[in-house]
Amino acid sequence: MEYVRIGLIGLGQRGSQIMRDVLLANEKIRVVAVCDLYPDRVEAAIKQATDAGFAAPFGTADYREVISRDDVDACLVICSWEDHIRVAVAALRAGKPVGMEVGGAYSVEECWELVHAQEETGTPFMFLENCCYGRREMMVMNMAEQGILGDIIHCAGSYEHDLRYEITHGKELRHYRLRNYIHRNCENYPTHELGPIAQILRVNRGNRMLSLTSTASRAAGLHQYVLEKKADDEELVNTTFKQGDVVTTVIKCAGGETIRLTLGTCLPRFYSRNFTVCGTKGMYEENSDSIFLDGNEEMMKTEWNWHTQFGNASKYEEQYDHPVWDKFLHDGVRGGHGGMDWLVYGEFVDCLLENRPFPIDVYDAAAWMSITPLSEQSISTGSMPVAIPDFTNGKWTSR
Amino acid sequence: MEYVRIGLIGLGQRGSQIMRDVLLANEKIRVVAVCDLYPDRVEAAIKQATDAGFAAPFGTADYREVISRDDVDACLVICSWEDHIRVAVAALRAGKPVGMEVGGAYSVEECWELVHAQEETGTPFMFLENCCYGRREMMVMNMAEQGILGDIIHCAGSYEHDLRYEITHGKELRHYRLRNYIHRNCENYPTHELGPIAQILRVNRGNRMLSLTSTASRAAGLHQYVLEKKADDEELVNTTFKQGDVVTTVIKCAGGETIRLTLGTCLPRFYSRNFTVCGTKGMYEENSDSIFLDGNEEMMKTEWNWHTQFGNASKYEEQYDHPVWDKFLHDGVRGGHGGMDWLVYGEFVDCLLENRPFPIDVYDAAAWMSITPLSEQSISTGSMPVAIPDFTNGKWTSR
Repeated sequence: MEYVRIGLIGLGQRGSQIMRDVLLANEKIRVVAVCDLYPDRVEAAIKQATDAGFAAPFGTADYREVISRDDVDACLVICSWEDHIRVAVAALRAGKPVGMEVGGAYSVEECWELVHAQEETGTPFMFLENCCYGRREMMVMNMAEQGILGDIIHCAGSYEHDLRYEITHGKELRHYRLRNYIHRNCENYPTHELGPIAQILRVNRGNRMLSLTSTASRAAGLHQYVLEKKADDEELVNTTFKQGDVVTTVIKCAGGETIRLTLGTCLPRFYSRNFTVCGTKGMYEENSDSIFLDGNEEMMKTEWNWHTQFGNASKYEEQYDHPVWDKFLHDGVRGGHGGMDWLVYGEFVDCLLENRPFPIDVYDAAAWMSITPLSEQSISTGSMPVAIPDFTNGKWTSR
Repeated sequence: MEYVRIGLIGLGQRGSQIMRDVLLANEKIRVVAVCDLYPDRVEAAIKQATDAGFAAPFGTADYREVISRDDVDACLVICSWEDHIRVAVAALRAGKPVGMEVGGAYSVEECWELVHAQEETGTPFMFLENCCYGRREMMVMNMAEQGILGDIIHCAGSYEHDLRYEITHGKELRHYRLRNYIHRNCENYPTHELGPIAQILRVNRGNRMLSLTSTASRAAGLHQYVLEKKADDEELVNTTFKQGDVVTTVIKCAGGETIRLTLGTCLPRFYSRNFTVCGTKGMYEENSDSIFLDGNEEMMKTEWNWHTQFGNASKYEEQYDHPVWDKFLHDGVRGGHGGMDWLVYGEFVDCLLENRPFPIDVYDAAAWMSITPLSEQSISTGSMPVAIPDFTNGKWTSR
């Protein structure tokens, strides 16, 4: 097999971007079926494929028609958050390997359903967390694996992204975030920052996340934005958003490490995942893009005027860039979101073609996605600590 | 009265630095009595004064001799954390106005004792939180007051300072941190970052802190440091430090705002208070020293390559530096810690000479210092949420 024949389920903003930036550009991929509830999106995707010189893929509004096709080798699930697990479970049970896009879960139960579907069928499953393939994330992962940072004690990360336009234009954009921000109050998008951290802390592979607390600020940003930018939309002006503007979640791990997550999508700000890794020998922090290594005399001297070290991480690229990125830079960075999309979808396809296990598996997906309903529990009970299930049922101690 | 006659209680690292940088340099101050449990420190302080051309202050090991002297107009309490409140209460009850240095409390009860002593005597009390006088803190406070940042929704700050040398050399330095890090596990030093945030959020003046959760990582940094740097100190090598390397505390306010505090003093890192203020119209973050304002087209364009904005806060100094700092820069910045010490002690003295109320009062001290024992409670009960007392007994709604 020279390429993987893909059934693509979900053709919204993310699905069409991945189609354009990755699926139609990677020679190891053929899109043979596309699916969305909106017919115009299906038509547009078929046109994307034919415009790029490929045969027209099969189009449908019913994902069950995709997962049952013999010419589909694997499914990509890029639909709305609410349907990720339901569709992925159906595809696994139909025997189709699944690559599933990111987002939080709605209940701990659906995380278990995903685990059970994978365990019972043995069908390969990969969680497509692109930020596990970010250049800085992989460089720091590489440094951590080499012991440069010592024992890793504390990590932090954020999904801080001004999404006020996208959320409040949910009707026009047909975007699921709007209904989520109206109805829920939780860490609704934890995996971009948690994924790389969980890999560094070897979560589900000798470590696991034990418990969390979560605290939400009041919700003010979206309503103020609506009053200013969409004052003529009476329905929206009268809408109360439940989602707090900033949600802070703190996770404790079996190894004694702590992880701090921040969701901040309703206030004006620069984009940041603020990926931060603190060990007994050194640290990296994204917002200053700085590395601090123990015993480095120059660094120790600048303790009080550390702003001079802004961006010094780039000096470490030559020595510590991850081999995956060394090759990527050499070959030429491609695909969306600074190359991360290209890498994560490429890994999905390469694992299938080379019959290798996926690096981000169903236990990772379940654990990372479960943070969303668990944070909702904690917030709704006044930041009470909440236990995080062991989705491996003990296998984390020997994996 | 042209100057304030000061009784200085506590002559350790901080006391002697303040003596040198501020007390002997500010013409509105005369140090007439000095006190420490160690006689050599008393001698050194007397010598500091006479070397600077002043009359020798009275020296003693008994703070009660200081607070009972007729020639002492006011007392400065700069002793070890454990004695801050005990000494301050005694001075208040002796009718001496008190300036008390920072640190966390040991029990909620002693915070109440401080409040009661001040309320019952009416003696003026000021908490000497120098970071409330930091240039960036005051600039952002000024911007917040002018509404430039909109409604403030979330704030964060840190005391992240590599103190491994100071802590593990506690015997040689006669420093109280050593015994604290051996025995306690808490947010032991919250006020540097919390002070300016509490002022911005008008805590105790129309707002208050309602509850917190606190989570500690394991303790690894100090032990590893001892093994590497003090391997010949058998007692220290065999010491177990209870204090977690990183402690994350999340506070919820009556106004729905959240405050995130980080203590990180046991791992190698650059110094940072990472003062962060997020509002509905804009934000400031210290670690990137950047300001982001809503509607600024240039900023909105750089959403994805925001690293270009590193340090852009300096562009706002001319427009938004606090009047206190405008004057300070014009007159010439003096004193320790980038001028903050000069300003906070100067304000203490000026308020006394001009008979003005102190800007940081006993309710602020009690609320800010109570975070330490409350975080200890939360950590010891698995990050359970803990209520924060209202030390104003309702006066915060009308102050």
